[in-house]
Amino acid sequence: MGEFELIDRFFKRQATPAPAGQAQAAADSMVLGIGDDCALLQPAPGMQLAVSTDMLVEGRHFLPDVDPAALGHKALAVNLSDLAAMGAEPLGCTLALALPPERAQDDAWLAALAAGLFALADEHRCPLVGGDTTAGPLNLCLTVFGQLPAGQALRRDGARVGDELWVSGTLGDARLTLAALRGELRLPPAALAAARQRLERPTPRLALGQALRGIAHSAIDVSDGLAGDLGHILHASRVGAAIESDKALNLMATHGHEAGTESRWDVPTLLSFVLHGGDDYELAFTAPPTARAAVQAAAAQTATRVTRIGRIEAEPGLRLIDAAGHASPLAARGFDHFA
Amino acid sequence: MGEFELIDRFFKRQATPAPAGQAQAAADSMVLGIGDDCALLQPAPGMQLAVSTDMLVEGRHFLPDVDPAALGHKALAVNLSDLAAMGAEPLGCTLALALPPERAQDDAWLAALAAGLFALADEHRCPLVGGDTTAGPLNLCLTVFGQLPAGQALRRDGARVGDELWVSGTLGDARLTLAALRGELRLPPAALAAARQRLERPTPRLALGQALRGIAHSAIDVSDGLAGDLGHILHASRVGAAIESDKALNLMATHGHEAGTESRWDVPTLLSFVLHGGDDYELAFTAPPTARAAVQAAAAQTATRVTRIGRIEAEPGLRLIDAAGHASPLAARGFDHFA
Repeated sequence: MGEFELIDRFFKRQATPAPAGQAQAAADSMVLGIGDDCALLQPAPGMQLAVSTDMLVEGRHFLPDVDPAALGHKALAVNLSDLAAMGAEPLGCTLALALPPERAQDDAWLAALAAGLFALADEHRCPLVGGDTTAGPLNLCLTVFGQLPAGQALRRDGARVGDELWVSGTLGDARLTLAALRGELRLPPAALAAARQRLERPTPRLALGQALRGIAHSAIDVSDGLAGDLGHILHASRVGAAIESDKALNLMATHGHEAGTESRWDVPTLLSFVLHGGDDYELAFTAPPTARAAVQAAAAQTATRVTRIGRIEAEPGLRLIDAAGHASPLAARGFDHFA
Repeated sequence: MGEFELIDRFFKRQATPAPAGQAQAAADSMVLGIGDDCALLQPAPGMQLAVSTDMLVEGRHFLPDVDPAALGHKALAVNLSDLAAMGAEPLGCTLALALPPERAQDDAWLAALAAGLFALADEHRCPLVGGDTTAGPLNLCLTVFGQLPAGQALRRDGARVGDELWVSGTLGDARLTLAALRGELRLPPAALAAARQRLERPTPRLALGQALRGIAHSAIDVSDGLAGDLGHILHASRVGAAIESDKALNLMATHGHEAGTESRWDVPTLLSFVLHGGDDYELAFTAPPTARAAVQAAAAQTATRVTRIGRIEAEPGLRLIDAAGHASPLAARGFDHFA
């Protein structure tokens, strides 16, 4: 199977029609898809273009025995999460793929990879409009394009003193799964299966991000760990923040007692998974207290859990507040690929 | 040096002001650059967005001892060439970069890579607006965004019977250089140096591509070899083509006698470099005979050499016409990464 046959067989397809009643924006925006020198997209009048790119490398972002459908899902999900964090609506994506020879001949693996990617792309009306395929160590580079009304992006530099700090969904379960898979900790099978879904099938919060336009002052997606990613907001906005530790711990979907009982791992370790674990692909965002009802309405409207875990303060740096109200410094460090 | 320091030191910079009198379109379109979840671009009203992505893998697209400045140039050039082939004007680009640990600590190498990329980006007003950096086998994935008036793209499917076939610049010198570097052929030092520039520093034909809007019926960039890439036009346009062999041979910038004398390689081999060599990043395009003066005016206006080498015919397939007028079949094959 050659390069063009591979593209034709697994990655080139007609755009699927939108289910009745579903927004057609993305499908309508694709003027020309795979098969020319460039893809052509037509953003809606007056919209700004949001662009993000993420590269996933075998052995670093995923293991060689990864479920290829989960890999296809995740490669797109981590990019869509960046669109979500800006409040953008997807227009399309490109996939550049380096494949070792044995993968390039593995029909089942390629079909599963494409199926995982297309399922999520369809769910969010984000057609694959182009790409590149080459031989090389396994590497997936996705680039996503979205649109949003000019001036309404949820940026990192908009947090203000007095804002409340919110997080969508759950945090720490991806890191907990890694610990279990590495044998550092044992989890009951059901808990592991649930937590593993969070590692392998993260949910980009696109609807929430768009609903938060005009409500949130700032937002970021949590990919390298809450503390490190929140640190980017604090740095860009020239503010500090305090996080309540009990609220943070409750962000882990896998109940603390499930993880704790079997493994005898302690609360600080589990809390560190929430704060520094990464691979969560949730939104951390800030909004003024007066917008609390609006945030909760946006969450309800998009069926997304949100939790208020702290506040933005004038004092620089990041602090953790324990149940007794004592503050301790919290390092705003995240995952660093070269650390 | 950590991931964010690496980005800050080598890849994040202020947009350079445009030289007096130069078009500001690209600089003006960047609303938000490196440092948030997404970059934000504002295409001009009514414009379509053109998108292309290319991945360069060490050992396949370049050798480990490549000049990093040439690598930075080429990684962007091959993408800009795709914009050129659609007739699009650059808006910006993203770079996803996987680096082995030793490269991530090699300041001189990274600085040269960035310098090569930025020099070409500045030349074409194509700011680096975002990206991703990770550890892994050396891999550069560039994605470019451009804009063009709706409906004016130079597509592959517009060639018509009777069109003349044109090629910009020169072809075959990149492949000739590879043969010389592999020791398959000897070139005089001056000829090798000139040919090597064509391999390492290809020139994206952006001005010509934009000038050909409304004149050319179809266009493609020659990256995998003229015959194979022209084959894509023929397939998409459901036509055939004939190429005159003497005109094709003259497309090689390195004179045939220079290559031929020293190496005793024959004309068919040199011709195969022109037709199947690849890595040329020139434009192949078709236009009606009535547009011949307009094509030549576009070429003169953009100071780009163009050569008429054949014609589009109703008979399917690709043919080579020798000096005596005899036609022989020519395989429309190009470079295939999995062949």
